[in-house]
Amino acid sequence: MPQYHAKVFVTLKPSILDPQGRTVERALSHLGLSASGVRVGKLIELSLEGERAEVEARLKDIAENVLSNPVMENVRWELQEAKESAPA
Amino acid sequence: MPQYHAKVFVTLKPSILDPQGRTVERALSHLGLSASGVRVGKLIELSLEGERAEVEARLKDIAENVLSNPVMENVRWELQEAKESAPA
Repeated sequence: MPQYHAKVFVTLKPSILDPQGRTVERALSHLGLSASGVRVGKLIELSLEGERAEVEARLKDIAENVLSNPVMENVRWELQEAKESAPA
Repeated sequence: MPQYHAKVFVTLKPSILDPQGRTVERALSHLGLSASGVRVGKLIELSLEGERAEVEARLKDIAENVLSNPVMENVRWELQEAKESAPA
């Protein structure tokens, strides 16, 4: 069955405060590395096996209902067919 | 001065165990959503102001020396010029 690699990007909605991002921003400023609007999100990588349409539906379910909180976070994802793996 | 948006992707090196990823994988499996090789990384978004070459050097410094641990993590980044912002 085809194998896919997926990346799921989870970011806080713009209206949600991000204390972790603020802390990074202050730390950078103390190091003389100015940056603004620092936001810390998550990147989840996973592998999925199955037919394309079913994998797409499963990934959407995983990304929207398991990996992210729709009240506070935005989520988007990328799906890519895995290259032919070398025989084990 | 030109304004840039940057995204920094921090992922654990393949040889480093990822208990958070394993936990997500087990949770997905209990929900009937099969996935393998789940790895949880970070996505940091930030804005930088300055001339392109200087901003690129600063971003490399931030990504490699502040946002990631070179012993355990891989890091890559994308830099994009910000669109003309609407007058405030």
